[in-house]
Amino acid sequence: MHEFLNLDGLPEKEILPGFTARFIHTDTLTIGHVRIARGSTLPEHSHIQEQITNVVSGELQMTVGGETQTCGPGTAVVIPSNTPHSALALSDCYVIDVFQPARADYK
Amino acid sequence: MHEFLNLDGLPEKEILPGFTARFIHTDTLTIGHVRIARGSTLPEHSHIQEQITNVVSGELQMTVGGETQTCGPGTAVVIPSNTPHSALALSDCYVIDVFQPARADYK
Repeated sequence: MHEFLNLDGLPEKEILPGFTARFIHTDTLTIGHVRIARGSTLPEHSHIQEQITNVVSGELQMTVGGETQTCGPGTAVVIPSNTPHSALALSDCYVIDVFQPARADYK
Repeated sequence: MHEFLNLDGLPEKEILPGFTARFIHTDTLTIGHVRIARGSTLPEHSHIQEQITNVVSGELQMTVGGETQTCGPGTAVVIPSNTPHSALALSDCYVIDVFQPARADYK
């Protein structure tokens, strides 16, 4: 069934200190609308899901597969399955993360 | 292989009059960064891909499965496989569309 979702009405989850997210799940996808506070860090990790991080606002330093870049609005980062990645928020950030398959751990 | 993509460096496609998009494709997903000019219309159509439309800016009137809503920033619209949908841009809009599986027609 289709859904019109007002993200403000979805529960907000603190997935890590400084990372607050609202998630949309379908059978096959998870989409995270993530706000990151300046200075917050995502330690290196990996997961079976491929991930595409779309930076909407702010400056996010990302390290993926050993390569580090500063990512601003208009940057999309493709992270294949099981690829180590980490991040540091150089400012407050808003990103839209797409995961495939869905992330059961975020349900 | 991972990729850091500067969307400004990707080719822009006019998918319909008033709809210009830059696409990211993986084996399983297509993500469209779509700019829509005020007054532009997306005629009713459907496709095998499920679609989640994330409105980043602007006001987009969407009709999905016979239900019409005005969608602003912070709205996400879940459109299951083969569900008819159409749209009218009430202002200039920027949306991030996620398609699964990937859209060969946009490659």
